[in-house]
Amino acid sequence: MPFTPTDYNPHDFANRRHVGPSPAEMAEMLEVVGADSLDALIDETVPQSIRQAEPLELGAPLSERELVWHMRQCAKKNQVFTTMIGQGYHGTVTPPAIQRYILENPAWYTAYTPYQPEISQGRLEALLNFQTMICDLTGLDIANASLLDESTAAAEAMAMAQRVSKSKATRFFVDENCHPQNIAVIETRAEPLGIEVIVGDPDEMPEAGLFGAIFQYPGTYGHLRDFTAQMETLHAQKALGTVIADPMALTLLKEPGAMGADIAVGSTQRFGVPMGYGGPHAAYMACRDAHKRAMPGRIVGVSVDDRGNKAYRLSLQTREQHIRREKATSNVCTAQALLAVMASFYAVFHGPKGLKAIAQQIHRKALRVARGLEAAGYTVEPKEFFDTITVEVGALQGVILQSARHQRINLRKVGDSKVGIALDETTRFEDIDRLWVAFGLEIGAPRSEEYRLPEPLLRQSDYLTHPIFHLNRAETEMMRYMRRLADRDLALDRAMIPLGSCTMKLNAAAEMTPITWFEFANIHPFAPDGQVQGYRELIDDLSAKLCEITGYDAMSMQPNSGAQGEYAGLLTIAAYHRANGDTHRNICLIPMSAHGTNPASANMAGMKVVVVKSAENGDIDVEDFRAKAAEAGENLGACMITYPSTHGVFEETVREVCDITHQYGGQVYLDGANLNALVGLSKPGELGSDVSHLNLHKTFCIPHGGGGPGMGPIGVKAHLAPHLPGHPATGGTEGPVSATPFGSANILPISWAYILMMGGEGLTQATKVAILNANYIAKRLEGAYDVLYKGRGGRVAHECILDTRPFDKSAGITVDDVAKRLMDNGFHAPTMSWPVAGTLMVEPTESETKAELDRFCEAMLSIRDEIAAVEAGEIDAENNPLKRAPHTVEDLVGDWDRPYTREQGCYPPGAFRIDKYWPPVNRIDNVYGDRNLVCTCPPLESYADAAE
Amino acid sequence: MPFTPTDYNPHDFANRRHVGPSPAEMAEMLEVVGADSLDALIDETVPQSIRQAEPLELGAPLSERELVWHMRQCAKKNQVFTTMIGQGYHGTVTPPAIQRYILENPAWYTAYTPYQPEISQGRLEALLNFQTMICDLTGLDIANASLLDESTAAAEAMAMAQRVSKSKATRFFVDENCHPQNIAVIETRAEPLGIEVIVGDPDEMPEAGLFGAIFQYPGTYGHLRDFTAQMETLHAQKALGTVIADPMALTLLKEPGAMGADIAVGSTQRFGVPMGYGGPHAAYMACRDAHKRAMPGRIVGVSVDDRGNKAYRLSLQTREQHIRREKATSNVCTAQALLAVMASFYAVFHGPKGLKAIAQQIHRKALRVARGLEAAGYTVEPKEFFDTITVEVGALQGVILQSARHQRINLRKVGDSKVGIALDETTRFEDIDRLWVAFGLEIGAPRSEEYRLPEPLLRQSDYLTHPIFHLNRAETEMMRYMRRLADRDLALDRAMIPLGSCTMKLNAAAEMTPITWFEFANIHPFAPDGQVQGYRELIDDLSAKLCEITGYDAMSMQPNSGAQGEYAGLLTIAAYHRANGDTHRNICLIPMSAHGTNPASANMAGMKVVVVKSAENGDIDVEDFRAKAAEAGENLGACMITYPSTHGVFEETVREVCDITHQYGGQVYLDGANLNALVGLSKPGELGSDVSHLNLHKTFCIPHGGGGPGMGPIGVKAHLAPHLPGHPATGGTEGPVSATPFGSANILPISWAYILMMGGEGLTQATKVAILNANYIAKRLEGAYDVLYKGRGGRVAHECILDTRPFDKSAGITVDDVAKRLMDNGFHAPTMSWPVAGTLMVEPTESETKAELDRFCEAMLSIRDEIAAVEAGEIDAENNPLKRAPHTVEDLVGDWDRPYTREQGCYPPGAFRIDKYWPPVNRIDNVYGDRNLVCTCPPLESYADAAE
Repeated sequence: MPFTPTDYNPHDFANRRHVGPSPAEMAEMLEVVGADSLDALIDETVPQSIRQAEPLELGAPLSERELVWHMRQCAKKNQVFTTMIGQGYHGTVTPPAIQRYILENPAWYTAYTPYQPEISQGRLEALLNFQTMICDLTGLDIANASLLDESTAAAEAMAMAQRVSKSKATRFFVDENCHPQNIAVIETRAEPLGIEVIVGDPDEMPEAGLFGAIFQYPGTYGHLRDFTAQMETLHAQKALGTVIADPMALTLLKEPGAMGADIAVGSTQRFGVPMGYGGPHAAYMACRDAHKRAMPGRIVGVSVDDRGNKAYRLSLQTREQHIRREKATSNVCTAQALLAVMASFYAVFHGPKGLKAIAQQIHRKALRVARGLEAAGYTVEPKEFFDTITVEVGALQGVILQSARHQRINLRKVGDSKVGIALDETTRFEDIDRLWVAFGLEIGAPRSEEYRLPEPLLRQSDYLTHPIFHLNRAETEMMRYMRRLADRDLALDRAMIPLGSCTMKLNAAAEMTPITWFEFANIHPFAPDGQVQGYRELIDDLSAKLCEITGYDAMSMQPNSGAQGEYAGLLTIAAYHRANGDTHRNICLIPMSAHGTNPASANMAGMKVVVVKSAENGDIDVEDFRAKAAEAGENLGACMITYPSTHGVFEETVREVCDITHQYGGQVYLDGANLNALVGLSKPGELGSDVSHLNLHKTFCIPHGGGGPGMGPIGVKAHLAPHLPGHPATGGTEGPVSATPFGSANILPISWAYILMMGGEGLTQATKVAILNANYIAKRLEGAYDVLYKGRGGRVAHECILDTRPFDKSAGITVDDVAKRLMDNGFHAPTMSWPVAGTLMVEPTESETKAELDRFCEAMLSIRDEIAAVEAGEIDAENNPLKRAPHTVEDLVGDWDRPYTREQGCYPPGAFRIDKYWPPVNRIDNVYGDRNLVCTCPPLESYADAAE
Repeated sequence: MPFTPTDYNPHDFANRRHVGPSPAEMAEMLEVVGADSLDALIDETVPQSIRQAEPLELGAPLSERELVWHMRQCAKKNQVFTTMIGQGYHGTVTPPAIQRYILENPAWYTAYTPYQPEISQGRLEALLNFQTMICDLTGLDIANASLLDESTAAAEAMAMAQRVSKSKATRFFVDENCHPQNIAVIETRAEPLGIEVIVGDPDEMPEAGLFGAIFQYPGTYGHLRDFTAQMETLHAQKALGTVIADPMALTLLKEPGAMGADIAVGSTQRFGVPMGYGGPHAAYMACRDAHKRAMPGRIVGVSVDDRGNKAYRLSLQTREQHIRREKATSNVCTAQALLAVMASFYAVFHGPKGLKAIAQQIHRKALRVARGLEAAGYTVEPKEFFDTITVEVGALQGVILQSARHQRINLRKVGDSKVGIALDETTRFEDIDRLWVAFGLEIGAPRSEEYRLPEPLLRQSDYLTHPIFHLNRAETEMMRYMRRLADRDLALDRAMIPLGSCTMKLNAAAEMTPITWFEFANIHPFAPDGQVQGYRELIDDLSAKLCEITGYDAMSMQPNSGAQGEYAGLLTIAAYHRANGDTHRNICLIPMSAHGTNPASANMAGMKVVVVKSAENGDIDVEDFRAKAAEAGENLGACMITYPSTHGVFEETVREVCDITHQYGGQVYLDGANLNALVGLSKPGELGSDVSHLNLHKTFCIPHGGGGPGMGPIGVKAHLAPHLPGHPATGGTEGPVSATPFGSANILPISWAYILMMGGEGLTQATKVAILNANYIAKRLEGAYDVLYKGRGGRVAHECILDTRPFDKSAGITVDDVAKRLMDNGFHAPTMSWPVAGTLMVEPTESETKAELDRFCEAMLSIRDEIAAVEAGEIDAENNPLKRAPHTVEDLVGDWDRPYTREQGCYPPGAFRIDKYWPPVNRIDNVYGDRNLVCTCPPLESYADAAE
């Protein structure tokens, strides 16, 4: 035996790649935190009473190569057919440059929501482009920076109409030509809110008793209709009208604004975002200026920085506070930022001329099909259409659907005697030729120059007139524009983003690779089951593994955000009570410290929120909980708790709280936001919880995408399984919460890959190291900052809250100043003022190395020193590095009249020297931005009309 | 007809994406250059006498989507089998993070060779890591930053040995255990140089009469041998010994340096670079310190910048001048920088511990196979091995090879009765199980802990001890390291790189996408023909299209760089003469203005270079040419010309020069470096040329990769076709010039994609716009800079030479100062001092937009103003923005004692404001670096030993 074999496994993903600190580093860190071993630290930190008895059983972990091989086998089981189903999802050509430079670029996909605007100018500009595009296409005044999907956007429009309408009516009219999933999600949403939904023919819409109505344009079967008369009828009864509009159609057709619509929603999927078996895609919402404060979702706006330079930010953020309120009718939190960015670039790539040409080509393809079928004697509806037609085929329906499938084409089954055919940007002439074969016709359709768009519905107004949509479209120029925007932002590919409760961990390349594969990207959400065996196996296996991890018995992948998961979970509980005849069980106990979406979701699920006090240490006040539960008595529907708590503590009373709830017949909803502190150590389902949502974009590695996509599947115990969300496409007794059965299925491979490569032991190690990393930071900052809410033994869980409130008094330094100063060090600030105003919540995750944690600690310690200097009067109270932060190159170039040096300003300890990240703007004026609201691209002299 | 159909095609790749200026911009530009139309400009510029009669016939252009579809069809025709062929190519696991963040990242692949070191610090660091890795693994003192492939590296080693050896001998010994392609390329190379190659058993190596010898380690059939005795024998006769060593084996085995080897070469393919049907991969060369000045290729070294900070640069560049000399025995120019970067990161990712573990795993797999076969009664050679064994199978050879193929395994055919089996990092146990099936054996091999590495050959020394190989290996940290390095560099994804003669055009995402597909990446170069139908169709169609473009009749894809193409072309000419019995035809006429590689290649092909004068206007002096041709008479072998000339002019005499050559029986070699000025306008093959090489990495969109890969296929007229390079794997009468039959086949999809999407019309338009862009720059800079060597009507071709020589006298400002000052504007300098010392040659290419050209012109004009200020004595002759360029953030942070402002220093006109690129270092001291030569990673305090 000439060499000693090493037991070092270079392909061990968990320990080589995912977990940040090396064993040597962990040893040093454990010394600092004063624990004998990692397991000892965990034993001190995580109460024995909640620990799971057995290690996770998830099979042997895969190496990166094995994972890719495994994924390839899975992908091959998906069959990519030519899609002509339509129904809100269409083939689209993602420009390869957008795919590579945005969708596959960590600078874009690992970014966080742009709450810290100074380090988010790139994606804010892209999102402002998105809003401008939406305003232009819809003809409305203001747009948000995306919603989750078209169906939830439609439901949001209904809720918004109710908020805004001066009518007291409780009825909402829904155009019967809406896509079935839109109707279903609206109905799901309406029921707990006590809204009566009337589905019908727009021509027979009631003239009174409505607070709003919604119409699909083009209709799900292809019809085109002018809703101007309906809008007038609605306005006459103080009701609001919403149009669900296909943005591609709007490049040719009269815009909702011109019809008098108050709100427009829709999906921008076909603007370059792959169908991905259902998502993620960016839905949009636009409305009239008068209603802007009632609009859900994030809105990007323009403001100025300290130098008076133009700068972007999220506008009207206080508006989001409606989420916190118990009366909220929206819990919208996540957007689909990455997909909105892609869609906006699709418009920038093509400009109005290109989009119009694409839309015309689509129409001509539809026309070709329609004329061919008419010539063969088929009856084609409607007479005028954009891209979708419906063909009466009588008893041949089954045969034709089958025959089309033999041609590898999916048509839509409409009723019992029709088929729907939708054409799109990707349809090739060869595809249409195969369609003739499917219909048993001779190949070749009669040519015609006669188009079939209704003359009165032709668009009269210009759109995308802003110079940004007229940039030179050469890829060279586009590539550089995308790079410039990316470079303005700080994402995980440059530095730790220690956002408490957001779990910004590694999004590994191996995990991200499969999602852009052909076989995952190009599947219609309503493709027949036989074609999606890969996806189904993936979803089944991922569900099973998540059940093993959480201790639940069943999963629903439908909710496409965390807040959606909360809502879906509470609906499931409500359905369970209803099935038991307990319709009175509608009280939901929620601790004061809960995330703002909790009460909002409860309200949306038709529950009454009762707030439970927190003890002084931040824990749930169990006695108050017991009292409130007793008070609710047989009306107790649920409680919502977070574990470990939003204060970052493993409360020892969690089982007791669950027991009390059950004792009074309630169900326990355990918010999964902090699951990263539990995986492998404790299973929520074994603690007494009945349902949880999991943030796959936190614990399970889906990147944050600069503010979405997210995924919030829910796990439930067996008794709740029959009451999980259903869907028109897949059945089930309950209504759907999202547009598609499996939510944003396209990003599920990421979480699956993560679990497959980590294995049970790896996942458990990740949890332990997440806890170590948080405790290391807490320990290193001890003395400089108070750590709030420690648990047993002075330990924190996977995050810790640093108290910066004292400095406001002692030095006039706010949490904001600290956050901005961290930018000078090249860091994104921790979560600010949540759950405790004026504090910072730090969550390093397991992926950060000791070096990066140390760099952060150095930064925080040097900030503390700077605060001390202000406290001591050694430096000016206003003109100091904290108040003037962040520092930019502009500061260096200009005159310097500050009582500290350029060096001190720009290179605080912890900042990289050569590789320093420079914020592109100085501190942004929030008040100015809200007072002078501009939410579309401002006129820019620097843009040249260079495109054509 | 309700809408007017637009004829705008948004999917027109040529005009929407590839060509920079929009039609509107072109109109403005034509006005500036004073031409009525683009065609009028071309007619004025390109002599009618050389224009092709018919437009290019290349079929209808494909859209990006159609291209991807087409590529998928092609890829599917490649069958990816498990590879056990070995012979220098092995399966390897490319870490997904390296694939995504480097191989698929334009910041890395669109960069140029780091000749401007201040804006190339990132890739210089990665290449220095590569050199350090090679020095460590081989146990030698100095390594270069990669060569083209192992076989050419072996031939380079032979040539270097001859240069260095103090022996006058002309014989070179080659170990018969070298890979066949290595022997063949060495033999090809030796013949014209008059070197006698002796292939034999190392134990029977002659004890006298050699200037050098080369050995393979491990041998091609798996043998392991200590060459210490051979080295002593060689040194005794003043000869040099070279070992071709597998770097993976070197992690376990005694290093060549310890055997006394003078040179080591080899391939780093299996360090994470896909096989790609032959390349590109980075070969390495290392040698003893004494011989460093004789080593071919680029060497990265460490120097200091103006502030005394450490900075990287290319060392010993004057050494490269040997290329220019007529006596040169190497024409090495391009390296394989991108692949060397990947290989270096593979080592950084795994560190010595990981590499050793991978090597051990490979050995254990080989052992498992050997023992299994031995147990079944087979005779396995050698007794001790690393990863490769050879099995005696007698008459069963055909059956077993076939049976293995049924198991989707490729084995190597060795002789008539043996099969070779090589195991690698990717071999799975399941693969070995299928191997048993192929041999008709029961599944399962006897276990053993007995390893079979020869005890005396076990490695005794440490390697990869530098902290860079002990960085924390978490992907988070690695990703950030790769991003930091990328951000230090300026590549095409941020700005124009207007390098004359280098044609830095768009490398579109659609073109780049297919190369990392599974079916293109994972093919062994010697895989059976039946498995590579996709590659073969691609190569055939690309060849046919290149023939149509160039007017030649046949193509060889074998040369994997431009200089290799020159060499191959001249060998083809020599073979043709030889076949005609004209062995005396060995004179090659080369104009004075030729690229330095021209005479070097001629010399390597065994030709005598005769230099032809240039006329005053830079053109070939036709009378001198005629005289020299006459003088050569029946000894005239060839002439080498460049068209348009290296001075950027369409000489009207090209046909005459060709005629003269042919008149005396010579052959015309037309250097294809400037083909970007000809495509669609003129075909070299119709001008009288007999052979050209094409730089696919210039004209046909293969990215420069920061200094490689390149591809230099040659096109020839029919009479030369039989004399194109052959290859042991594919046959042919001539020897090979590269390791594999089709050179760097893996990157051919890029050029194919480009041609398919452009079509004939698009390619022609690209040529025209390239000429327009160059003329626009020339015109805009008129008055400020003299443009040298204009053609008819004062027009330039696709590039122009700006004369900066006068400023040295008038203001002491050198071309270097101008180049460095351009960095402050965010530009890479044009080609410096070539073809005329002290000038800048600008080639904008067709991909740059008017805005970018204007930005460049503004920069150049403002530089001219700055020069004027120095001339006028308005600013200090030494302390001025030109001499102090480039400016860094460090300049801004520190004290400012300059007679110009920070603003003037850092933000000259044309520089971006927010998005400015900041060079990471100040001007680098070249002299210091060469005087204090450090070519491995310097000790760095900042690296922590954080890995384990």
